[in-house]
Amino acid sequence: MQVYFKEFTYSTRERLELVDITEQITAFVRECNIESGISLVNSAHSTTAIIVNEHESGLMRDILHKVQEEFPKGASWFHDRVDDNTDAHLASIFLGHSKTFPIKNGKLYRGTWQNIFLLELDGPRTRHIVCEVMGE
Amino acid sequence: MQVYFKEFTYSTRERLELVDITEQITAFVRECNIESGISLVNSAHSTTAIIVNEHESGLMRDILHKVQEEFPKGASWFHDRVDDNTDAHLASIFLGHSKTFPIKNGKLYRGTWQNIFLLELDGPRTRHIVCEVMGE
Amino acid sequence: MQVYFKEFTYSTRERLELVDITEQITAFVRECNIESGISLVNSAHSTTAIIVNEHESGLMRDILHKVQEEFPKGASWFHDRVDDNTDAHLASIFLGHSKTFPIKNGKLYRGTWQNIFLLELDGPRTRHIVCEVMGE
Repeated sequence: MQVYFKEFTYSTRERLELVDITEQITAFVRECNIESGISLVNSAHSTTAIIVNEHESGLMRDILHKVQEEFPKGASWFHDRVDDNTDAHLASIFLGHSKTFPIKNGKLYRGTWQNIFLLELDGPRTRHIVCEVMGE
Repeated sequence: MQVYFKEFTYSTRERLELVDITEQITAFVRECNIESGISLVNSAHSTTAIIVNEHESGLMRDILHKVQEEFPKGASWFHDRVDDNTDAHLASIFLGHSKTFPIKNGKLYRGTWQNIFLLELDGPRTRHIVCEVMGE
Repeated sequence: MQVYFKEFTYSTRERLELVDITEQITAFVRECNIESGISLVNSAHSTTAIIVNEHESGLMRDILHKVQEEFPKGASWFHDRVDDNTDAHLASIFLGHSKTFPIKNGKLYRGTWQNIFLLELDGPRTRHIVCEVMGE
């Protein structure tokens, strides 16, 4: 069995932002030359999420709008007394910090409309994503 | 280490529908004869989700009602100009396209009240689910 | 390849409660002496969730408050006729029963502000969490 890791660094520019990381993740999986296995995409942060869906500019705006609507900034949270970003923590918890994919025939298994995004929830910041590939 | 895949196809009949896929997934895991490992259940679509909970008819109605309440159709989304199903994409993102389970003593590890469901969010359609089993 | 399992039992004291299980999970991963692999943390229950975020007392109160706000008890659900805890099932579905982490350099890979919590949604009860470690 083989295990490979690659860390990706992104500098976000907005408070809320979707960064499409599909190409870098799928290229890394191909380079690993694993025929069958699994791939993890994990964010090391508590105010980001990893999400999977279609890369369509209108939908990407809708996603950011829905997140702001569900997790409004400044809604008198206790954590805002410590750090003014409770909304970002809550969105991260509900959307998840990690996604898992099969590797089949040497490729990350996903559908045509399933791109992989880093969702920045408290930018602009420098963010670290790790992709793990495990299999043989 | 062994790796096995099986694809399951479902034809849904309603726009919103819960399809209990537990029996097919757990039967496949048993057939693989893996003593210890992990199992992934992934949907290849951006308008479905894989969820885990109790198979009780009242609860199943409540789940569909909650999804409709949280992600109402036609709420003037940008993506609706392209394809009239933004609500389905958003629900898929919040509920997730994949679930992961341990395989222990040759069986998929789950609790008594943890069934596995394909959640159709934009049916009726033909849907493809992949189950991966990896271990030894 | 090696596979290890450990079951953890928790007795919760409140209906809604966050139990920080980071130390026990990370200690078990270290004890397994796996250099590279993956770790699953799964709950066997349909009225709990496993979440990942910062251990800050104000934020922990905010999380419980947000869950109560999103999934109010007694909102005339069908499942409440069978068992008075539909809110707990729905929260479990939206937050997820499982989280997955890389194991890198012998340690569970997580960020500084990423603690692992069992979220009790229908306590007080006795709860079982399984941690699986797989790798080499």
